[in-house]
Amino acid sequence: VTDPLSAALAALLSRHVDLEEGQVADYIPELAGADPSCFGISMVSVHGQIYSAGDAELPFTIQSVSKPFVYALALSDLGLPRVARHVGFEPSGEPFNAISLEPGTGRPANPLINAGAIVTTSLIAGDAFPRIRDTMSAFAGRALSLDEDVYRSEALTGDRNRALAYLTSSQGVLARPANEATDTYFRQCALRVTATDLAVMGATLANAGINPVTGHRVVDEDVARITLSVMSTCGMYDHSGEWMVRVGLPAKSGVGGGITAVLPGEFGIGVYSAPLDAQGNSVRGMAALQDASTRLGLHVFAPVGEARTAIAESTVTGSALNLGLRGEINFTAAEQITRHIHEQVATFPISLIVLDLTDVTAVRPIAAELLAATGAGLTGRGVRIEPIDPSGILGTRSDTDPPPPNP
Amino acid sequence: VTDPLSAALAALLSRHVDLEEGQVADYIPELAGADPSCFGISMVSVHGQIYSAGDAELPFTIQSVSKPFVYALALSDLGLPRVARHVGFEPSGEPFNAISLEPGTGRPANPLINAGAIVTTSLIAGDAFPRIRDTMSAFAGRALSLDEDVYRSEALTGDRNRALAYLTSSQGVLARPANEATDTYFRQCALRVTATDLAVMGATLANAGINPVTGHRVVDEDVARITLSVMSTCGMYDHSGEWMVRVGLPAKSGVGGGITAVLPGEFGIGVYSAPLDAQGNSVRGMAALQDASTRLGLHVFAPVGEARTAIAESTVTGSALNLGLRGEINFTAAEQITRHIHEQVATFPISLIVLDLTDVTAVRPIAAELLAATGAGLTGRGVRIEPIDPSGILGTRSDTDPPPPNP
Amino acid sequence: VTDPLSAALAALLSRHVDLEEGQVADYIPELAGADPSCFGISMVSVHGQIYSAGDAELPFTIQSVSKPFVYALALSDLGLPRVARHVGFEPSGEPFNAISLEPGTGRPANPLINAGAIVTTSLIAGDAFPRIRDTMSAFAGRALSLDEDVYRSEALTGDRNRALAYLTSSQGVLARPANEATDTYFRQCALRVTATDLAVMGATLANAGINPVTGHRVVDEDVARITLSVMSTCGMYDHSGEWMVRVGLPAKSGVGGGITAVLPGEFGIGVYSAPLDAQGNSVRGMAALQDASTRLGLHVFAPVGEARTAIAESTVTGSALNLGLRGEINFTAAEQITRHIHEQVATFPISLIVLDLTDVTAVRPIAAELLAATGAGLTGRGVRIEPIDPSGILGTRSDTDPPPPNP
Amino acid sequence: VTDPLSAALAALLSRHVDLEEGQVADYIPELAGADPSCFGISMVSVHGQIYSAGDAELPFTIQSVSKPFVYALALSDLGLPRVARHVGFEPSGEPFNAISLEPGTGRPANPLINAGAIVTTSLIAGDAFPRIRDTMSAFAGRALSLDEDVYRSEALTGDRNRALAYLTSSQGVLARPANEATDTYFRQCALRVTATDLAVMGATLANAGINPVTGHRVVDEDVARITLSVMSTCGMYDHSGEWMVRVGLPAKSGVGGGITAVLPGEFGIGVYSAPLDAQGNSVRGMAALQDASTRLGLHVFAPVGEARTAIAESTVTGSALNLGLRGEINFTAAEQITRHIHEQVATFPISLIVLDLTDVTAVRPIAAELLAATGAGLTGRGVRIEPIDPSGILGTRSDTDPPPPNP
Repeated sequence: VTDPLSAALAALLSRHVDLEEGQVADYIPELAGADPSCFGISMVSVHGQIYSAGDAELPFTIQSVSKPFVYALALSDLGLPRVARHVGFEPSGEPFNAISLEPGTGRPANPLINAGAIVTTSLIAGDAFPRIRDTMSAFAGRALSLDEDVYRSEALTGDRNRALAYLTSSQGVLARPANEATDTYFRQCALRVTATDLAVMGATLANAGINPVTGHRVVDEDVARITLSVMSTCGMYDHSGEWMVRVGLPAKSGVGGGITAVLPGEFGIGVYSAPLDAQGNSVRGMAALQDASTRLGLHVFAPVGEARTAIAESTVTGSALNLGLRGEINFTAAEQITRHIHEQVATFPISLIVLDLTDVTAVRPIAAELLAATGAGLTGRGVRIEPIDPSGILGTRSDTDPPPPNP
Repeated sequence: VTDPLSAALAALLSRHVDLEEGQVADYIPELAGADPSCFGISMVSVHGQIYSAGDAELPFTIQSVSKPFVYALALSDLGLPRVARHVGFEPSGEPFNAISLEPGTGRPANPLINAGAIVTTSLIAGDAFPRIRDTMSAFAGRALSLDEDVYRSEALTGDRNRALAYLTSSQGVLARPANEATDTYFRQCALRVTATDLAVMGATLANAGINPVTGHRVVDEDVARITLSVMSTCGMYDHSGEWMVRVGLPAKSGVGGGITAVLPGEFGIGVYSAPLDAQGNSVRGMAALQDASTRLGLHVFAPVGEARTAIAESTVTGSALNLGLRGEINFTAAEQITRHIHEQVATFPISLIVLDLTDVTAVRPIAAELLAATGAGLTGRGVRIEPIDPSGILGTRSDTDPPPPNP
Repeated sequence: VTDPLSAALAALLSRHVDLEEGQVADYIPELAGADPSCFGISMVSVHGQIYSAGDAELPFTIQSVSKPFVYALALSDLGLPRVARHVGFEPSGEPFNAISLEPGTGRPANPLINAGAIVTTSLIAGDAFPRIRDTMSAFAGRALSLDEDVYRSEALTGDRNRALAYLTSSQGVLARPANEATDTYFRQCALRVTATDLAVMGATLANAGINPVTGHRVVDEDVARITLSVMSTCGMYDHSGEWMVRVGLPAKSGVGGGITAVLPGEFGIGVYSAPLDAQGNSVRGMAALQDASTRLGLHVFAPVGEARTAIAESTVTGSALNLGLRGEINFTAAEQITRHIHEQVATFPISLIVLDLTDVTAVRPIAAELLAATGAGLTGRGVRIEPIDPSGILGTRSDTDPPPPNP
Repeated sequence: VTDPLSAALAALLSRHVDLEEGQVADYIPELAGADPSCFGISMVSVHGQIYSAGDAELPFTIQSVSKPFVYALALSDLGLPRVARHVGFEPSGEPFNAISLEPGTGRPANPLINAGAIVTTSLIAGDAFPRIRDTMSAFAGRALSLDEDVYRSEALTGDRNRALAYLTSSQGVLARPANEATDTYFRQCALRVTATDLAVMGATLANAGINPVTGHRVVDEDVARITLSVMSTCGMYDHSGEWMVRVGLPAKSGVGGGITAVLPGEFGIGVYSAPLDAQGNSVRGMAALQDASTRLGLHVFAPVGEARTAIAESTVTGSALNLGLRGEINFTAAEQITRHIHEQVATFPISLIVLDLTDVTAVRPIAAELLAATGAGLTGRGVRIEPIDPSGILGTRSDTDPPPPNP
């Protein structure tokens, strides 16, 4: 018996498998040999469940899909301020191999064009390639291996990438000798992955840096958030704006035919199909992702529909107000709750508020802050708040805490 | 007694009021006269509550903050495909007044640079300016008025905007005579708003197109989503990428000193302070928004923390499985529920599943689809699903429905 | 009996008349109606003789060929330093309608792209169009008239030129209101000329600013030299470098089908044939000019062949040295003469040198300076120089004179 | 006794020696050590006379002044059509180290920017550096040697040039491996020259490819003409247009402090002074050249003054017309002569024309062609032309000869 999500993925593939446009990358013979008919997809939730259809376990080289993950490693090694001295965050409005160095600083525009990716690779400390391979493996939840033939072929034909390396070196933003940085870059691009690997890698970003399959933290929350932010504005090169309008999922594609896409907080998707459009993106992969987004409402800015009130129950008994909350307590919910409490306190002689958080699924920081401030204000007026919080979901941050370090 | 959210906003202002950098726009005398010390902020939830602090009711001209709202009107009039023939969605990597026409099509890169905004204005059907004023008023929830002096001064000094109009006209993408389009554009920029107006306007986009204060639908869901998407990649001109990394709220600023920012599904923020940085953005406004984002975790890709299970209760009684759900049923939740049902059905001789949705706050389309497919699969195996859905929150879309129109 | 030069021009036409490539300009109906088979050429010497073949007297609109002549008028009105504040001299590497404003100054790159030409037109003092028409007429040696239909049509379709005008206006480099400058520009482009007119206009530049047919000075020497310099580097837009390599004549073309080309100091050529290449240059006109250059060695840097000595005769009689000079006395000749004099003075007891300039055709300033310095040096040593200079060809400038005003 | 030309050069230096602006190139220590006070100039005529003043014999590295001479060698090796497949002729409007590859072909814009120079160097056949050194030595008239220290330092710091090499390699226009091409390029730039060497090298181009000091042909006429053409439009990078307006001599500068400038057909100039302006040109060198051009009228388009008639004598004796010609017979002169002959033949019963060319100094091809055609026409009418041409100066090319190969 197939589960319905796997069935939905299979249906998705069947709707686009006949799309015959595009050309398999042929600048090296190792890529040119890919079977244009293979087509696979995987979807991995932040709880670690994997659903897939088609050729989801077929290996191919990761190519440019490696870029955001190596960027995440560089952020982990050095922190955003130091990384930002070497590579920017701005969409360049130009193709993947553009020469977009920022006037003045000489920084490549962003880490997802080749120039920026090579600089990013040069920032990885220590024995760079093994560390990159290990981090990518941690993102994927299994040991990834190098396709030696692809690596050697890329190294032979990679003069444009060498040019970008020397150019950034001459600008003082490349952190290692140009030939060393490009060699590591060619290796990183030649790591073998499957559509399922890409989905797990995306799910790790969706899950705030913890691989939901292995349970291991790969990068921290801030790093995952920054990486997704850069993917959302720069991930599809000079079509990033249209991608955000039409699909609305931070994503990254590679000339190997793979794409990873992420719905933050929910899941990662990996797609594979070798034929590419003129911009170097998998034709069927793009079509499948756009279809999924439109049909299933996956867009990060898609409306949820009119949300119901977070207050499941409100009863006043003597001087006690009993509030039963439910669902995710975001700003909207916290604001409602605060307002409701103030109205009740103004109406009844209340001295105790019991906040039942048993059915609450999550509390956003802004909501925790608002509720804490409400509590503090009431305490000064003789009203005590008593949370029933069996799983300790209520945070304790307040406006007077020191702010988290600015990224 | 001040409510805690208003207090938090007042604290936010006090942290940045001493920031003395920036220059009030002085290209026309009417803007140069603004009081550089005024500073105000408003925050409006999708439930229509308004919180503010400082000079939140001080009027100023909307300027470029008008651009996304007129774009939303154009999308409403013509639909995305027709609008997209005239103006693109790509970040241009260039300043607000850049001449970024796409080679081949002659389209301005996006509707938030001046060239694209003028083209967008030219697309408004009928008596353009009154319609724009009425739509902006509907977004703000009150009748906005024109600052005649600012309008006349802008018209006198607006040669660069006239140049952009004639240029786009010569490319065949301007839909009206150049002098007519620029005249309407100068008027739209000279509409008077307050920080609270900008917050309500943002909240209308956050609320999927329905003004949460008036309850009137201004634009439809798709239009709100597209507008937010374009704001997220192009809203801060050549700093959009960095803004998404550091703040993570779709936003738009104007040289009048206003900024609107949106957390989709939750709220809109309006800020006002006249001194501008070199890129033409309010210095204190930017600082306040970045502070709020960092301190309160407002980033659209901020992690919610480890979400709790959506299954509040699961009991098997005879051949009946009773499932109590809670919170927002997104993909993650639906996938958990589906998986749990399959496990239970495989273990027990279940013929009836009671799905109690009473404590559910929202159901995302992807989740509804997944649950419907699960139900269909079980029906074929003799298992009936019985939802308890007092407020009809469970949608009915399925994979076999016609897809919604592709944007 | 046809003279041989007219015969050579006829032969030139016959070699290219069958060239069928190119399209008549069709952006306005008035140009689209031109007969693609018409083909004419004229050549005018600095002595005012006119040779022509084919449709050399057919009228057409001058279009962009007007640009260098209006630039010459602006230089005459204001001088180079003031003109240079408004428009530069650099080849832009871009097409005719490029938006190439210099960062910082906002100046158009040069006066031969449209933006620069419109700015140049705006610099003409007083009643601009009549003055332009009169100056162009003085260059052509006859009263030129306006093609009203072409003017009106250009004015209707000229939005890109209006854009360039407003853009330069917004940069502060346009000297008149944008609509006024473009209106004058459209008129200047719609003046009717013939291939012979263009040849006379070019010959006026070749002849250092004096119309060789009418004998009237139109502009001064410096203005003619500057104008030719700008034509040599910018005249053929983004093919100026290749034109200088392959043809080597300062030139300017127009979409009306005309081209003017100049061999400084010798002649002007005008060609007419309506079909244009993709860059907007007359196909047959370009072919004829390249053929003429290659076949006849017209390139400005073409070698003259080994020049013969300028000293026709040298005899010493008693204490007198008699030197008979001939031809053009340029630096090379003057250096030879000076060296010869020093050798003779060192060998013989010479007290008088008779310099016979009867057969000298021209003396370059550098040569006059060198001879004067030689004379001064000898005077101090008791040697007198006595020129025989029946036509006063020997100048008197010396190193101690104040330099001519720096352009 | 100093000759007057050397005195004029000394005076020129003294007028600019106090100019203290500019910075000695300091990107490598070997250049930074140059003495900023040294200043020298040399001028060499096409007859091989050398005049100099100041530090004209001080050695420095040739740097970018090597570019036109290596381009001349590439043209000699391969011919223009093959060279033009690799590098263009267009001014790029950009600085020396610009990345200006032509869209489509990937060719660098011209051979005088670094990218184009490296490609040009890669085109040199055989053992490239020795051949380049030998050709440069032939241009200079003495064996030039390599500054090993400068070469090694440039090689260590040359990442931007390596970038340009790999970039052009990736476009398929570099003819050798990138590291090989850059190594040769670094060597070529490190050849040691003096101001006098640069003057002789320029004089060789001025003299149509024959070194006027050694008398050896280095390159052929066409190559010299093409090289001068490219220098005239691209020699001063993004100031080439202004240089042509203000100085009017094809020229090339280098960061070593040298400049070579050429007045075609007359002389070459070499200047040396180490302090550079922001564009990398010798400050005093530029000033001295502009001063010389203005004061001495050296501009290639400078007017000669009103030229005198080329007909020194015209007498009719019986049926014989005796014409005594003088000076350079260019188009203007030949046209006059032809016209005069026709007038005489129409008036008198002439059967013999004696053309006395004894005092003629040069005959341009166009003039020879015109006279030959005149002769052919008259022969058909029974008039014989008898030249008196003691030195065989009259060429024999006619319109019916095959044209010379198109460059």
